[in-house]
Amino acid sequence: MIRKYRIGNPIPTESVVTEIEITEGNIPFFTTDVEKKSLFLKLSESDRIWGLGETTRGMNKRGWIYISNNADDPVHTEDKRSLYASQNFFIVDGDDGRFGIYVDTPERVTFDMGYTRSSELVISFDDFDSDLYLVEGDSLKEIVRQFRKIIGKSYVPPRWAFGFGQCRWSYMSADEVREVADKYDEAGIPLDMIYLDIDYMERYKDFTVDDKSFPDFPKFVQEMKNRGIHLVPIIDAGVKIEEGYDVYEEGLSGDYFCKKENGENLVAAVWPGKVHFPDFLDEKAREWFGNKYKFLLDQGIDGFWNDMNEPAIFYTEDHLQEVFEQIEDYKGKNLDINSFFDFKGLVGSISNNSEDYKRFYHNYKGQKIRHDKVHNLYGYNMTRAAGGAFERLCPDKRVLMFSRSSFIGMHRYGGVWCGDNMSWWSHLLLNIQQMPALNMCGFLYSGADIGGFGADTTEDLLLRWTAFGIFTPLFRNHSAMGTRRQEVYRFEKTDSFRRLIELRYSLLPYLYSEFMKAVRDDEMLFKPLSFEYDDARSLEVEDQLLLGESLMLAPVYKQNATGRYVYLPEDMKMIRFRAYDDYDEEILQAGDHYVKAGLSEVLVFVRKGHVLPLAKPSKRTTGVDAAAAGLSYICYEADPSGYELYTDDGVSRIME
Amino acid sequence: MIRKYRIGNPIPTESVVTEIEITEGNIPFFTTDVEKKSLFLKLSESDRIWGLGETTRGMNKRGWIYISNNADDPVHTEDKRSLYASQNFFIVDGDDGRFGIYVDTPERVTFDMGYTRSSELVISFDDFDSDLYLVEGDSLKEIVRQFRKIIGKSYVPPRWAFGFGQCRWSYMSADEVREVADKYDEAGIPLDMIYLDIDYMERYKDFTVDDKSFPDFPKFVQEMKNRGIHLVPIIDAGVKIEEGYDVYEEGLSGDYFCKKENGENLVAAVWPGKVHFPDFLDEKAREWFGNKYKFLLDQGIDGFWNDMNEPAIFYTEDHLQEVFEQIEDYKGKNLDINSFFDFKGLVGSISNNSEDYKRFYHNYKGQKIRHDKVHNLYGYNMTRAAGGAFERLCPDKRVLMFSRSSFIGMHRYGGVWCGDNMSWWSHLLLNIQQMPALNMCGFLYSGADIGGFGADTTEDLLLRWTAFGIFTPLFRNHSAMGTRRQEVYRFEKTDSFRRLIELRYSLLPYLYSEFMKAVRDDEMLFKPLSFEYDDARSLEVEDQLLLGESLMLAPVYKQNATGRYVYLPEDMKMIRFRAYDDYDEEILQAGDHYVKAGLSEVLVFVRKGHVLPLAKPSKRTTGVDAAAAGLSYICYEADPSGYELYTDDGVSRIME
Repeated sequence: MIRKYRIGNPIPTESVVTEIEITEGNIPFFTTDVEKKSLFLKLSESDRIWGLGETTRGMNKRGWIYISNNADDPVHTEDKRSLYASQNFFIVDGDDGRFGIYVDTPERVTFDMGYTRSSELVISFDDFDSDLYLVEGDSLKEIVRQFRKIIGKSYVPPRWAFGFGQCRWSYMSADEVREVADKYDEAGIPLDMIYLDIDYMERYKDFTVDDKSFPDFPKFVQEMKNRGIHLVPIIDAGVKIEEGYDVYEEGLSGDYFCKKENGENLVAAVWPGKVHFPDFLDEKAREWFGNKYKFLLDQGIDGFWNDMNEPAIFYTEDHLQEVFEQIEDYKGKNLDINSFFDFKGLVGSISNNSEDYKRFYHNYKGQKIRHDKVHNLYGYNMTRAAGGAFERLCPDKRVLMFSRSSFIGMHRYGGVWCGDNMSWWSHLLLNIQQMPALNMCGFLYSGADIGGFGADTTEDLLLRWTAFGIFTPLFRNHSAMGTRRQEVYRFEKTDSFRRLIELRYSLLPYLYSEFMKAVRDDEMLFKPLSFEYDDARSLEVEDQLLLGESLMLAPVYKQNATGRYVYLPEDMKMIRFRAYDDYDEEILQAGDHYVKAGLSEVLVFVRKGHVLPLAKPSKRTTGVDAAAAGLSYICYEADPSGYELYTDDGVSRIME
Repeated sequence: MIRKYRIGNPIPTESVVTEIEITEGNIPFFTTDVEKKSLFLKLSESDRIWGLGETTRGMNKRGWIYISNNADDPVHTEDKRSLYASQNFFIVDGDDGRFGIYVDTPERVTFDMGYTRSSELVISFDDFDSDLYLVEGDSLKEIVRQFRKIIGKSYVPPRWAFGFGQCRWSYMSADEVREVADKYDEAGIPLDMIYLDIDYMERYKDFTVDDKSFPDFPKFVQEMKNRGIHLVPIIDAGVKIEEGYDVYEEGLSGDYFCKKENGENLVAAVWPGKVHFPDFLDEKAREWFGNKYKFLLDQGIDGFWNDMNEPAIFYTEDHLQEVFEQIEDYKGKNLDINSFFDFKGLVGSISNNSEDYKRFYHNYKGQKIRHDKVHNLYGYNMTRAAGGAFERLCPDKRVLMFSRSSFIGMHRYGGVWCGDNMSWWSHLLLNIQQMPALNMCGFLYSGADIGGFGADTTEDLLLRWTAFGIFTPLFRNHSAMGTRRQEVYRFEKTDSFRRLIELRYSLLPYLYSEFMKAVRDDEMLFKPLSFEYDDARSLEVEDQLLLGESLMLAPVYKQNATGRYVYLPEDMKMIRFRAYDDYDEEILQAGDHYVKAGLSEVLVFVRKGHVLPLAKPSKRTTGVDAAAAGLSYICYEADPSGYELYTDDGVSRIME
């Protein structure tokens, strides 16, 4: 049962697609404090909190404070309160009952999950204008299903997007991209995608290609496509200010850019230097920008990723000017504890400065609204611009799309990656822990940058992360310019990487089936153990996951470990894969086990009464035969015929 | 057996106190590559590496790259290569043999512990001038003992320094300090020390006290001492440039400051703004600075901590001037991907800039040596200045002293704390993992800032961290200005904190005995399991510790966990403490266990044949009766008489 409540006069987010009548009165369970613009909820000692999408820390969100305030912050340490996304749905799960709540407002919302006082959950609002959806149901899964039903079906990518992809910020030319493809092919490692980061563009201008480093792009796209490799370029939010640049000129003449108070277009800066930001909240601008993807679609591109769409702002022209003036005050002085940090802070806080988000406005449904009031909707609507355009431009075909910034609602138009993570073992664990929370909020096509984006990876971290990544729908190795090169063929254990990635392709029928059924049935692909088992121990397991109907995963995420503890809520069949066709099976009894898992091995636990279909891998997803007859099956007290295999052509749009 | 080798012409560090003849020829096991200024060692798959003191990551250092380059960097994430210390001793521990190696040079040394190639350890030098001590022995413990013997006995603090201490950067007045003491006493929570961070000084000038906020300091010190509380002030490396300020004037007239190439005193800046750095490598300057502690000793102070002694540099006058000039170049330009980050980097890298360390010189043993060549010795020699002075000024009395920056050798003059950590669960684990490595290098009096220095703590993190901190010799709750206040009485579970800290006081006879015996016998207080057990599983345990002869610890370091896995290499008696006088005992068999450990509980495992003495706690260490007759004993197949209790007056200097 879902009831809708309203506080104040919320700005619509269009994240919920089902019309629900507003229930008058206070929202049950919570105490409302209008003065504090807050809702209070008593927590009992054993209450757990699931959800909130892409946030820091563990699966159980209890004990920290989170702020929905989409942020371009690459250092995802435990103390961070905001990452790239605002996904305001969570479930309070107690031994005596449970309910979900969706806080549907674009404004800044603070979720104090028992941080200030361990016995109290407090939701605080900047403005106190919000719709609230209270979701009750018999089980955690049922609550999620109900919620997912009102926010609309999750985005479905083409099947090839379940292949493996390689990316790096600094593929500077077509030749360099070719070399990556060659090296993968030479090593016999499957690959379906190479991603193009900002370097393919002409001076970082959206919907351009640098024709010196990527000459005859359509031909190059075709060449790669002939090899079975999709090129997936990045699109940034900001449009470079440059006379004669068509996108800029069209934006100007169409009046599609965000405006300052005085009506002038905001001048901010990102990669290309000064840019204007398209007003993605304006339907007209959205349609215009969406149509620009045609420039690349026409060249054979069939997948994109949207970036810098919080929006990230290196600086605004106005603020930078102020900073330069203020710097003058510090010259020739004895800068001490206060003045020195003021000076450093002045420059250090130029980027993504919250005051800059108050310097510009949107035209949202005919109203002039200051950016900070709808900040969390910006990336969502950029991706919606693309998604809407794809429906018009290629109505028969799925286009790959995922985004860095997001908000619930965006899950209908694209997936997400977990942003600019680091080559940290703790971020492999974070990746594991974020998956179910993303799924709860509708984001099924998701994953993190395998091996870590920032900082230097190690071979063992990349092996362990790949061994988990083979299970995430978005399976991309990505790293930042200046860090250690991270393509798997650069390391000594190339064979191990090959076997891991082959196993991914072997799992494809299962992964694709489970993904498509999760979309169809509004289910989660990844679940914490607590969503299926209610014994006390299952409720606390933070480093294992259920994947689809058949599998439990227990990834190794600690350096130098050759095994790990695993908790089995029921008897399971453990598969220790060394390769898709080289594995041991062992029935393990319910309870605790310490299991060995070498650097090149993957553990998978098949649930009782369930089936894992396996295909013969191929170097491309298109080569993987997903017909039931072509598969082999690992079963645990089950029959292959009991498994519902989902197949389709992999590219046609799914009709709802 | 220890052999000494020499490469080039190393600058002496005086970390080794035993004269050992140099063995000619190449160092065994290693291959020397003069051109690459590197030593190479083949690693077998199962080799482990223990040691390196205060560094990031796990106990087994394999798989990362570490650089000895003392750094004021408060963000101790996994990717960092340098922290505050250079402690170049480690053991390569293989199934077929083991040896320790001490790389005795002040220069920058890079330890590639199987990072670039997992099968290779590479030690790379900036200059390739180093003494190398190769330590062979039958066991890990024996190797450590031999090494410790040649570097001299570890520093011994007064016994009261084993009490609990409270600190915060921002105790702004005597009244605020009084309030802290009052609150602890009101809550009945034991406390022996309150630390004074930089705020007690007059405008951050060493050896001054702000007489407005701390009027009549000697009286205040005495007042606190009458309550049994020691005030422990901070001392910074930099001396404020201020005419008439005696320390500055003396430094000038005595010529005790570090010089630029042109002979002028270097002007750098720290808290007070512009400062000169005493040349701690100059024996004369060291003696002069050491004598300045008398200013506070004379006012009743009997403990200090030395900070900012890497040295941290906010900026140098010369470089800041250059930066201001360079900023001009960026004005009025379209700052893009390159130029904008150049601009931000220009200001962002002002502090602790490696180029600044090349701008000044020391007078070291009569030679003019550029700072960067002896950088890693600076904090060591600041603390040596203090330690040397204490021997002269109070020859009969122990003075508490610990330092942020360190080098092996400094362990004879003071302890260390693990620097400006964060309120992260991962830093609680890091604290656990750093202890044995510090011990190996001679640093026995050590601990981390309980609850975390930077970022906001949570009550559960502080509880769990306190539950580990009760076992570390240095047991201090410390937090930074601007973070959540962190004194334990500010939280809801005050009783739990009281019981935990009481347990510390109850453990005092054991902790003090084990500490003193470790000093006497050149043993480690904290050991990885692998130092006592050689079964395959013990070698990999990264989150349990042996503490002294009787105990194994298995701290909980994960949020929302109510238990944890523990591995027992042999049968042990598990004690689940709720309070010093409220606990369960249970014999657990060797093997794996999942054990419950509530937020207010502490698990301790007593080894077979061993004894844990417990005292009745008191509000001050002085009130804890450590005589054997006053103790109770928890024994596991052992007799209390078998335990060697160490007692002394707790303040007299230990003669060697």
